[in-house]
Amino acid sequence: MSPKKVTIIGSGNWGSAIARIVGSTTKSFPDEFDPTVRMWVFEEIVNGEKLSEVINNRHENIKYLPGKVLPNNVVAVTDLVESCEGSNVLVFVVPHQFVKGICEKLVGKIPADTQAISLIKGISFDKTNQGVSTEKRGGLKLISEEIKEILKIEVSVLMGANLAPEVANDNFCEATIGCKRKAEDGPLLKKLFHTDNFRINVVEDAHTVELCGALKNVVACAAGFTDGLGYGDNTKAAVIRLGLMETTKFVEHYYPGSNLQTFFESCGIADLITTCYGGRNRKVCEAFVKTGKSMAEVEKELLNGQSAQGPLTAEEVYLMMHKTGLDAKFPLFTAVHKICAGEMKPAELVDCLRNHPEHM
Amino acid sequence: MSPKKVTIIGSGNWGSAIARIVGSTTKSFPDEFDPTVRMWVFEEIVNGEKLSEVINNRHENIKYLPGKVLPNNVVAVTDLVESCEGSNVLVFVVPHQFVKGICEKLVGKIPADTQAISLIKGISFDKTNQGVSTEKRGGLKLISEEIKEILKIEVSVLMGANLAPEVANDNFCEATIGCKRKAEDGPLLKKLFHTDNFRINVVEDAHTVELCGALKNVVACAAGFTDGLGYGDNTKAAVIRLGLMETTKFVEHYYPGSNLQTFFESCGIADLITTCYGGRNRKVCEAFVKTGKSMAEVEKELLNGQSAQGPLTAEEVYLMMHKTGLDAKFPLFTAVHKICAGEMKPAELVDCLRNHPEHM
Repeated sequence: MSPKKVTIIGSGNWGSAIARIVGSTTKSFPDEFDPTVRMWVFEEIVNGEKLSEVINNRHENIKYLPGKVLPNNVVAVTDLVESCEGSNVLVFVVPHQFVKGICEKLVGKIPADTQAISLIKGISFDKTNQGVSTEKRGGLKLISEEIKEILKIEVSVLMGANLAPEVANDNFCEATIGCKRKAEDGPLLKKLFHTDNFRINVVEDAHTVELCGALKNVVACAAGFTDGLGYGDNTKAAVIRLGLMETTKFVEHYYPGSNLQTFFESCGIADLITTCYGGRNRKVCEAFVKTGKSMAEVEKELLNGQSAQGPLTAEEVYLMMHKTGLDAKFPLFTAVHKICAGEMKPAELVDCLRNHPEHM
Repeated sequence: MSPKKVTIIGSGNWGSAIARIVGSTTKSFPDEFDPTVRMWVFEEIVNGEKLSEVINNRHENIKYLPGKVLPNNVVAVTDLVESCEGSNVLVFVVPHQFVKGICEKLVGKIPADTQAISLIKGISFDKTNQGVSTEKRGGLKLISEEIKEILKIEVSVLMGANLAPEVANDNFCEATIGCKRKAEDGPLLKKLFHTDNFRINVVEDAHTVELCGALKNVVACAAGFTDGLGYGDNTKAAVIRLGLMETTKFVEHYYPGSNLQTFFESCGIADLITTCYGGRNRKVCEAFVKTGKSMAEVEKELLNGQSAQGPLTAEEVYLMMHKTGLDAKFPLFTAVHKICAGEMKPAELVDCLRNHPEHM
């Protein structure tokens, strides 16, 4: 087996943090990996310099991860197709609205046995509702499914309690890889990401791993509302728990056969906790309640140009559930969407939870 | 069926908060419950007045729950035996070191078909190691087992994400009742505690419910250490998750046949989250690391005369695991004890987790 070539598609905050890990592991295992890791960089001019050149010359992403050294075997490439040419492992770490366009450009340009791993948290809602599988699911499509559908390659996912700045700081944490061909692909993927401070568990239940990563943002919105409303720890814990229960029910409904154990992995409860205490969805939703401003305004004020995924995911989830007549069974998810959309007052959140199916 | 008489054994902060709930539910269901709820009060003189008289005349526990009205059907009784005479439901809510003495005084003084429910979080370590069951468990005895052994009555438990001041404030929260005879006793117990803001689920897996309530304090110590060491959200989430995994393994080892679903109840993840973010064990352990003072000193400074249960439970758990040769399988529990006992530096905590059995 010749050493695998790895490409990181994306170079934002999370992409750059993960490049520090992948750059180091590929150097440590020269039998398994080609030491050069290409990173696709969307070219930008930062302080009069090309971002790709700064990365290649000074080994720092001065825009998205300033102050942290990138390993010198991580090479910025601005042409997408060139960055992926001959690559065996594609690491997807871009905002989810760019996935489709990127994949379409790569059709026919990558080896047939390439595999991908998605680090993208979010879901896709297929409004055209094409294809049997998404029709059954009211339009739900996972990012991994979107990649697979276009590129016809195997796609795994990596999710977990991984706020990017802390990962970039080498703080101890865990992550979960969901990998349908666990026996075949699991060991290589674990080698690619597992370090002393970034501890990987591999599970087979990839859909659950990915859905946990998307739905936790919806739960974090609810947690942010309770913070904004001034509730204490008990109420917040109840909201987080009910959100987790809706997540398990949602997974079980749309992807039957999930393993309950997967929710105990880092992608499950750990990521949920981190997101509900430290994440930006929580922060934005707290401010939304406290200031009375619109969601767009608080995002603009607090997120420095980035957007919160939670309200978008809540809307997609709501539309899908509504289509399949399930919204009543998911009162928390439903309330988050309605509050974000201005159709319900935040103060009504707790009333929606009092007669939760979980309490019947 | 004649209405059941209920006695609350204990009148501290949590006992008084629960008396507000039980006083109200017993009034709402006169067919099921005798409206007079007796509350055993350990007599104290507070500002020159007898606590029991203040409770009975002004309906306020001015020492342990000042500012909150107790329902007027809650009657303070200072004689333990008198408070329980003819009672059908005993609600135990005292510090766990008093349980044995209280139960011994009640032997032969209560109806044979009385049932108990314990709200006490902690475990008992039977150092004399008498009796087959605790010998098998290296001395582990649950509070419910201790009550049952002495009084020969059925004992259920109530645990959950229930910081007492917030419950007293009528903030929305959830709790779990663990009840071995669920079909028989569950409906009555749910009626006794379930309100608009205190939502009860009943499960059969009572041992798991009770052990979650005890072991979360050990996990909260670890969470406090990470806070004291300045780690961020990722590390704290990993520590909480690994603590939960050790809790599930511990329960499975000592009380085989637990239901994984129970850990998703309020007694499980919700209480764990609340305790690891808002509880006093976390607070004390954070200060222990930051100040370098002894555990006894920080407890004295921060807890106003109360003690933190976590270090005590960690010691009991450690002794038990050590006896049965299991400490290596529980690196987090073991580290918490050793750090509390001064046998290990807090900074070594994360090193103990790097090769956690969960990552193998």
